[in-house]
Amino acid sequence: FRTGSGWDLHRLEPGLPLVLAGVEVPSDRGCVAHSDGDAVFHAVTDALLGSLALGDIGRLFPDDDPANAGRDSGDFLDEAVRRVQAAGYAVVNLDVTVVLQKPRLGPHAGAMRAQLAARLLVGLDRVSLKAKTHEGVDAVGEGRAVSCQAAVLVTRAAPA
Amino acid sequence: FRTGSGWDLHRLEPGLPLVLAGVEVPSDRGCVAHSDGDAVFHAVTDALLGSLALGDIGRLFPDDDPANAGRDSGDFLDEAVRRVQAAGYAVVNLDVTVVLQKPRLGPHAGAMRAQLAARLLVGLDRVSLKAKTHEGVDAVGEGRAVSCQAAVLVTRAAPA
Amino acid sequence: FRTGSGWDLHRLEPGLPLVLAGVEVPSDRGCVAHSDGDAVFHAVTDALLGSLALGDIGRLFPDDDPANAGRDSGDFLDEAVRRVQAAGYAVVNLDVTVVLQKPRLGPHAGAMRAQLAARLLVGLDRVSLKAKTHEGVDAVGEGRAVSCQAAVLVTRAAPA
Ligand SMILES: [Mg+2]
Ligand SMILES: [Mg+2]
Ligand SMILES: [Mg+2]
Repeated sequence: FRTGSGWDLHRLEPGLPLVLAGVEVPSDRGCVAHSDGDAVFHAVTDALLGSLALGDIGRLFPDDDPANAGRDSGDFLDEAVRRVQAAGYAVVNLDVTVVLQKPRLGPHAGAMRAQLAARLLVGLDRVSLKAKTHEGVDAVGEGRAVSCQAAVLVTRAAPA
Repeated sequence: FRTGSGWDLHRLEPGLPLVLAGVEVPSDRGCVAHSDGDAVFHAVTDALLGSLALGDIGRLFPDDDPANAGRDSGDFLDEAVRRVQAAGYAVVNLDVTVVLQKPRLGPHAGAMRAQLAARLLVGLDRVSLKAKTHEGVDAVGEGRAVSCQAAVLVTRAAPA
Repeated sequence: FRTGSGWDLHRLEPGLPLVLAGVEVPSDRGCVAHSDGDAVFHAVTDALLGSLALGDIGRLFPDDDPANAGRDSGDFLDEAVRRVQAAGYAVVNLDVTVVLQKPRLGPHAGAMRAQLAARLLVGLDRVSLKAKTHEGVDAVGEGRAVSCQAAVLVTRAAPA
């Protein structure tokens, strides 16, 4: 077994799309980023890479590389999954917490979990996505940013 | 094994009780919340639910449900423990970090750990509670909020 | 197995050294602290102590104890490693995320990982260090603080 932990934060600005875990969430503001700014996919990518000391998303996909401009963050996540597999490991489970002041993510949680499970090649029962607000304080609470933390457990054998 | 991760934050206001891990901590301010605002119990509840992808505290105990108004957060935690047990799992260990600018929680850590251990049905040696300040910056550092993060490991067999 | 989770934050001020994971990082500002303010070593120390419910860094090394003034935080980490060993456990892996607005830590990540691996008595392939910015918002994003979170997995047997 190995434990991995990822975190990401993106600023939000009016008129941009808000894409979280590959799902476009209706919102009056979205992520400022070089890629598509999917803070969930980024945090999960980092958790996977971190569990096996394979680097981090910034090193693998530099944000000053034009090839990564506006890029689908699912590509980053898929590559991390491939690297975990290449190292002989598989995902046991993933637990994600998204912190966003609004809108409420509850209605989208099912679609977000399905996206994550499909990309991690595990069943839905191994993928948790929890949503919180930041209670109105600091950048996330004031609606100026979204953050996400991800915890992952991987194992050398097939998950049991 | 499954890994779970929970996080919570509540705003603090003068004249309210400060209840953390079921212990009333003497303080000139306490949590603003629909329930009793126990950020530790809430974070641990979410970590347990998250480890087995059983939803989150907001979905199980909606804060717009009058039944949850002023409710003892120990009820939420007990229910999460029951659901973990019902899924055939038990808690291996819990590690909690509370971030509060003041007062110092050291004198209360023993009572808080005892509450958690009793509700999680494990020995005290499997429950860690660490306290930090936020060094005077941001909402927590300025004494306007308290936050808590919890990491949990659960296993299908009896913990070993 | 046991899971541990640590977090730390220090304020930054001009003219002080910035020491992270035992590596002095060239910077126009550094950590305000009673010890050397190494937020990475502090977070990892707390993650190790937390995994086995051995207390926390504030209890073991009080910041109002003159013996800890300006102290090398490697001492705290070494002591935590000793206590984990004394309890019959060893580190399986460590995953660290440092959040600092500037400078970029990429060039120092190798040296930081090497320091951590040497002190944790494990191979480099079991130590991950990831770097993020705070996207310009809140105290960390405004360059007024650095934070670090650490996730650790320990096991009773030799790590496998
Ligand atoms: Mg990102
Ligand atoms: Mg709460
Ligand atoms: Mg510190």
